[in-house]
Amino acid sequence: MALQLDVVLTKQKKEKPDFGRLGFGQHFTDHMFIMDYNPEKGWYDPRIVPYAPVTLDPAAMVFHYGQAVFEGLKAYRTKDNRILLFRPEKNMQRMNISNDRMSIPPVDEAFLLDALKKLVEIEQDWVPTAPGTSLYIRPFIFSTEPYLGVRASQTYKLLIILSPVGAYYAGGMTPVKIHVENKFVRAVRGGTGNAKTAGNYAASLKAQNEAKDLGYEQVLWMDGVEGKYIEEVGAMNVFFKIKGEVWTPALNGSILDGVTRNSVIHLLRDWGIPVQEKRIAMEEIYQAHLNGELEEAFGTGTAAVISPIGELNWNGNQLCIHEKSVGELTMKLYETLTGIQYGEVEDKYGWTVQVNETVASS
Amino acid sequence: MALQLDVVLTKQKKEKPDFGRLGFGQHFTDHMFIMDYNPEKGWYDPRIVPYAPVTLDPAAMVFHYGQAVFEGLKAYRTKDNRILLFRPEKNMQRMNISNDRMSIPPVDEAFLLDALKKLVEIEQDWVPTAPGTSLYIRPFIFSTEPYLGVRASQTYKLLIILSPVGAYYAGGMTPVKIHVENKFVRAVRGGTGNAKTAGNYAASLKAQNEAKDLGYEQVLWMDGVEGKYIEEVGAMNVFFKIKGEVWTPALNGSILDGVTRNSVIHLLRDWGIPVQEKRIAMEEIYQAHLNGELEEAFGTGTAAVISPIGELNWNGNQLCIHEKSVGELTMKLYETLTGIQYGEVEDKYGWTVQVNETVASS
Repeated sequence: MALQLDVVLTKQKKEKPDFGRLGFGQHFTDHMFIMDYNPEKGWYDPRIVPYAPVTLDPAAMVFHYGQAVFEGLKAYRTKDNRILLFRPEKNMQRMNISNDRMSIPPVDEAFLLDALKKLVEIEQDWVPTAPGTSLYIRPFIFSTEPYLGVRASQTYKLLIILSPVGAYYAGGMTPVKIHVENKFVRAVRGGTGNAKTAGNYAASLKAQNEAKDLGYEQVLWMDGVEGKYIEEVGAMNVFFKIKGEVWTPALNGSILDGVTRNSVIHLLRDWGIPVQEKRIAMEEIYQAHLNGELEEAFGTGTAAVISPIGELNWNGNQLCIHEKSVGELTMKLYETLTGIQYGEVEDKYGWTVQVNETVASS
Repeated sequence: MALQLDVVLTKQKKEKPDFGRLGFGQHFTDHMFIMDYNPEKGWYDPRIVPYAPVTLDPAAMVFHYGQAVFEGLKAYRTKDNRILLFRPEKNMQRMNISNDRMSIPPVDEAFLLDALKKLVEIEQDWVPTAPGTSLYIRPFIFSTEPYLGVRASQTYKLLIILSPVGAYYAGGMTPVKIHVENKFVRAVRGGTGNAKTAGNYAASLKAQNEAKDLGYEQVLWMDGVEGKYIEEVGAMNVFFKIKGEVWTPALNGSILDGVTRNSVIHLLRDWGIPVQEKRIAMEEIYQAHLNGELEEAFGTGTAAVISPIGELNWNGNQLCIHEKSVGELTMKLYETLTGIQYGEVEDKYGWTVQVNETVASS
């Protein structure tokens, strides 16, 4: 691809936020990546420029018909000041899977990954140092054509923005309480469940709010056809340890193919722990619980990496898991994955990619 | 409500497009309505201002999590230069139904309708005169908070933009060829099918493109659970005339509650034609076709009003309807509805609302 990446550095760097109180997705760095698409040029004018607002016609199709996809990954700072990405090529691949489903033109994955690495390298001072902190990376595409007919847009923008984020478990890892959702549905076969597209998240908010009102932190989504089979937990994939085996819902077209999910399966197989990707009825989990065989449960995703589940609320039944404490396997997975991400555990799978060429300045 | 509508008129009116070649949703008028929302003020600063781009932070939630709803209605010019809206209060009501599903704060329907009327009155020179032309009105809301956590946005914008549009049937009313979709799904119970939200339209594009590649103009959506029951056609509701009765899918939560659908049912009942809102299996339509009982079929929506269906392609079966010509009832509904909309048929239901106080200048 003949694309040439232009770089325009800011003349006025922002004051950095307090890295001890970052939260998630609230602060943004000095620069962003942006490129445009039209049918004549394809993707064009890739550039790293100062972080700045986007100006759009009110008729821009994203506001009306929601053609939009995104990705999420992180850059981690090691103790020796290397900046590492974790399996970023998987995010680039998945972006194109999402693009295909949402009728958005594909991107050059290798070019985009190079641009992403360059952006992170430029912003390496924004990768925080405290344990568990990281620089969240958000590539996203949206439609921009000012036109109200219902069809795919002819023009798009792709941006990458960066946000330093705090430790997910700043106060220690605490299992979450989950409401098994029986009214709302996240996705259905033939829908957009396996695409990382904006509308899936908008659709999930009302269920999430109602679960919060009931005292639960997340929802466990059931399938859209029968309402019996487990799909995802919140915006994460989900795993159950039952009698020494680990089960996770199979990728059936309505479940997101998570990078952390894939890595967990890989680790478990490498450790000789049986993993089954299969259709899992909530009833099976309940029966395992009654039989004392439900040993651990956890969600997987980029933000939390591993999120232990302490309680499931299903049709009025409270399933207490691992006495609401973090299970051994859950903890081992968390420590191994974060260990690899922060360069403290040997990366024998070749999952990390170093961004900076020399030792960082911080 | 204490909201005060501010009006700032443009100093430089646009050159109007050729009203004989308008197309749909491509041209926009001189002004727009806009107001903002935050948790402290609620909806605030409602204003009519010159049509202008919107500037958003790249982290604005609409780009990432797609919280967005819209409405669509039209202003029609009568022969005596009155400007009429058609049942606009229904659109305001539906916007709040969409808002509720998408966790967007409700709007004051009466205030918004007044603002809409004021905007159309200011832009009345943009309501075209030729038969079948109109001024399309697009109210829409989207989330604006610059934040990457998955939750409802705390801030929003509501805009109304206007677009003069050409006659839908400029070359005469022609029945469309429809592909019965058996791979993709538009919506499912528990999902967002009855909300007019951006993601539903993004989700529909791939099926629409694949149908076009097969030589069909639209898709007929089946239900997401069993894939057997009829939901909508393209972005319209759908009706079938069988042995003198008219059937349309019941509002089951995954179907949009169309204003034209509602008006058609009202007209048919007033005319003494039996109408059933019920679950309709595609198999029933096929059997009616084989028995020679499928007399007419049509879609209903704001853009086309009535869109006759000439052919259905279902699992390799071609159902030719009314010899691919426009059915008598289909035509009568079209002529009655458009007659009321353009002030040429007596409005005995009180469906039209006049916008301009005096005879327009054109």
